[in-house]
Amino acid sequence: MAGYRVEKRGQENTGTYRLFFSNDKGQFLSPFHDIPLMASGTEDVFNMVVEVPRWTNAKMEIATTEPLNPIKQDVKKGNMRYVANVFPHKGYIWNYGALPQTWENPDHKDESTGCRGDNDPIDVCEIGTKVCSRGDVIQVKALGILAMIDEGETDWKIIAINSKDPEANSFKNIDDVRRLKPGYLEATVDWFRRYKVPDGKPENQFAFNSEFKDKDFAIQVIKSTHDFWKDLITKKSSAGGINCTNTSVSNSPFQCSEADAKAFVDAVPGYSAGDSVPADVDKWWYSKKN
Amino acid sequence: MAGYRVEKRGQENTGTYRLFFSNDKGQFLSPFHDIPLMASGTEDVFNMVVEVPRWTNAKMEIATTEPLNPIKQDVKKGNMRYVANVFPHKGYIWNYGALPQTWENPDHKDESTGCRGDNDPIDVCEIGTKVCSRGDVIQVKALGILAMIDEGETDWKIIAINSKDPEANSFKNIDDVRRLKPGYLEATVDWFRRYKVPDGKPENQFAFNSEFKDKDFAIQVIKSTHDFWKDLITKKSSAGGINCTNTSVSNSPFQCSEADAKAFVDAVPGYSAGDSVPADVDKWWYSKKN
Repeated sequence: MAGYRVEKRGQENTGTYRLFFSNDKGQFLSPFHDIPLMASGTEDVFNMVVEVPRWTNAKMEIATTEPLNPIKQDVKKGNMRYVANVFPHKGYIWNYGALPQTWENPDHKDESTGCRGDNDPIDVCEIGTKVCSRGDVIQVKALGILAMIDEGETDWKIIAINSKDPEANSFKNIDDVRRLKPGYLEATVDWFRRYKVPDGKPENQFAFNSEFKDKDFAIQVIKSTHDFWKDLITKKSSAGGINCTNTSVSNSPFQCSEADAKAFVDAVPGYSAGDSVPADVDKWWYSKKN
Repeated sequence: MAGYRVEKRGQENTGTYRLFFSNDKGQFLSPFHDIPLMASGTEDVFNMVVEVPRWTNAKMEIATTEPLNPIKQDVKKGNMRYVANVFPHKGYIWNYGALPQTWENPDHKDESTGCRGDNDPIDVCEIGTKVCSRGDVIQVKALGILAMIDEGETDWKIIAINSKDPEANSFKNIDDVRRLKPGYLEATVDWFRRYKVPDGKPENQFAFNSEFKDKDFAIQVIKSTHDFWKDLITKKSSAGGINCTNTSVSNSPFQCSEADAKAFVDAVPGYSAGDSVPADVDKWWYSKKN
């Protein structure tokens, strides 16, 4: 299996921080476009790029509009963005990240949700035992899916488990999560519903009466977002601000050379320690209802 | 207000790790016996020694049987002890620690619980916004108390808030916690009930139908455990394994010199980085019931 490495650039905890990806030969690449969606030799195991380790708060995400799509921290109104701890939760309650080579097309209205895509790769909540590290590329089994509606856009959340989890064989579908990790799916809906409320936003809504769809449904959605990505990367869809620079997609007009890729990385200053995290990040937010 | 410092000794994450306390002149002292219970000039504000910062797992505690009572990590069957993450909780859900100069006398049967004391200083759950550091000495307002019964012993849990918390003035009694941090008291009972179950122990029980007693009740219990400590430190009670060495309690036969205190600390090897924390500490434990 291909191994990936990460290289930190810019200043930690600031708007300049970037985490670039390379292959095991040290050649830089895009985690959005160059890491294959399918883990080799499988039907239902996918590569996942971990953006946010479980129990942390910094809202890290693949920079979809920058060349080579490094991970960076989201910035809101000039402030580094950290998700609030919505009681009883601490930070993100799963290893959170994205499936490479997928795209939620903002020009496509999903027939099941009636809403358009959010212009990002599809999100994943990985529920295994291990706390991953930012930038890990792991292989996950898809188990189900939740249809979050965020300000009128469809924002699918895949529920998956690390295929190397000691209990991975016991998880075959969404009902196994309900049975073996009681309360986790309810906590997942509760988390997504309330996590932006401390930032002054309304509660998020969900399609399908806030119920999770099963594995087959999840895989269909993944395949569909993979098809949207294929159109994007081959310029059959308009890019909508997405930076499609890649180093390995053979039929893509956005392919760049190894030297170009290195130049993109070298354009960002070297890594340095940064500001301390604001104390406010540790606050626990309570809400009356449950 | 007196300031305190901490000095690390031994090897991190091993049985030799110790955190010693000194005053702001660098004179070593016992956090159990030499830090006053009452914060100066107050009736209901107490000093608290933080043993476990919120959201961490290492079960750190004042070593009651060692000279100068440094903080050390509890060891069970040769393994460093970490509390389990009982879903949906992550580690300890408050800053957890003890009130100095208190002692739950194991020879005294409490008239309200019918159980004897657990031979430790009284425990505190500090519910403020800030995540403290191990060894912090903070000033807390007592708000209420929970009577946990652990294997037949009374193990009181004081509910308190950092007096420097931005919202401290809004918290005057236990009902304010119920009103302003909804769910936190229920989570506290749930946490204490289940936290030893992953280690193969039964659920803990509680006196008073698992209900919290109010501030006045809490202060009465604190005063009573302070009186037990006074008998202990002046040798009116038998010590039951407690090391009463102190540097400042004027009427105590266990008082030692500054040089003796330094010798106790110097007998422990200097600080060094240690083993990594076992991966199992990150596991989330689920239980069927709620």
